Amino acid sequence: MQFPSKLIEDAVHAFATLPGIGKKTALRLVMHLLQQEPKSTELLSEAILKMRKDIQFCSTCHNVSDDPVCSICSSPARDRQVVCVVENFRDILAIENTRHYNGLYHVLEGLISPMDGIGPEQLNIQSLLERMDQGEIQEVIMALNPTIDGDTTIFYLSKILSKYGVKITSIARGIAFGGELEYVDEITLARSIQARLPYESYLNK
Amino acid sequence: MQFPSKLIEDAVHAFATLPGIGKKTALRLVMHLLQQEPKSTELLSEAILKMRKDIQFCSTCHNVSDDPVCSICSSPARDRQVVCVVENFRDILAIENTRHYNGLYHVLEGLISPMDGIGPEQLNIQSLLERMDQGEIQEVIMALNPTIDGDTTIFYLSKILSKYGVKITSIARGIAFGGELEYVDEITLARSIQARLPYESYLNK
Repeated sequence: MQFPSKLIEDAVHAFATLPGIGKKTALRLVMHLLQQEPKSTELLSEAILKMRKDIQFCSTCHNVSDDPVCSICSSPARDRQVVCVVENFRDILAIENTRHYNGLYHVLEGLISPMDGIGPEQLNIQSLLERMDQGEIQEVIMALNPTIDGDTTIFYLSKILSKYGVKITSIARGIAFGGELEYVDEITLARSIQARLPYESYLNK
Repeated sequence: MQFPSKLIEDAVHAFATLPGIGKKTALRLVMHLLQQEPKSTELLSEAILKMRKDIQFCSTCHNVSDDPVCSICSSPARDRQVVCVVENFRDILAIENTRHYNGLYHVLEGLISPMDGIGPEQLNIQSLLERMDQGEIQEVIMALNPTIDGDTTIFYLSKILSKYGVKITSIARGIAFGGELEYVDEITLARSIQARLPYESYLNK
């Protein structure tokens, strides 16, 4: 692709480093900025720079935060006896948007992955054990992706958490709401038959 | 949508002002930046800021440029007798990428649109007439979108350019390469029959 200007080329390459944005889309974004007032480019530039520079990670749960302790950990309305373990802070956002969870979180910042050489010591597991030591937590919910790495991590965590004698649960896996049995993969279907629920509990959900 | 932080919310809103980027995509971009080194956000922020601040518009053809005169206008390899009139600098990029045009350009920065209250005096027409006055230009190609506004602009320009006695042409309109007759709209098909070409000239294209 030919660029009319070095400045445009640099901006296109910078945009194209973002996920899901190729060179053509990046060029469209740059062209859009050029047709707007310089002010709008300044606002975008400042907003992302300030966000990246000033963002903090909660000292308790490692969620992104404006303050040293995040709004969830510092909220008095939250159930402090339940902790939901997630892979990254994007998952917190997804769960929060359901508005059906009122406990705390713990961000691992990754999953145990022997293939990628990621062991437990590279994840935020030590800080989870320190939270467990305080004795307030009664239940740990594993909300990890249903992959081999996710299952490995759940297996590891459930072993080292067993000494605390707390309830360890995992988010339900099965057929998605609105899905069609015919098109579901065999593993999901097999698991959802094995982990079948009594009809009454299904109604209560 | 709930945001875990005011900083993230501001950055998402800034990204979401870009075309084709909604709140969900914007959030994905922000999350990506947060998971990268701060350096990559700085690079993006600086590239777009510098691009918007330092970009110039060519004093001859109004194309975007790093210098007061753009690389096309200042190139000795270009045919200075042909000028292609386009709506905006994005069209120049599209035509340049074909590698089948070697003349100069003139960016109108809009089209005459009575509906939107845009008259000829708001477009770069005066500067086109000044270029015509220099007497070097032999052909003006209208490469405007095939819309009512495009046709209005071509009609207006062809009238005021008629006094210079130069050749005035328009890019060919017809069935797109690879298109199927069955699915082409009536206006395009009707026009492409009316403007049919001798078979030999078709072969030469």
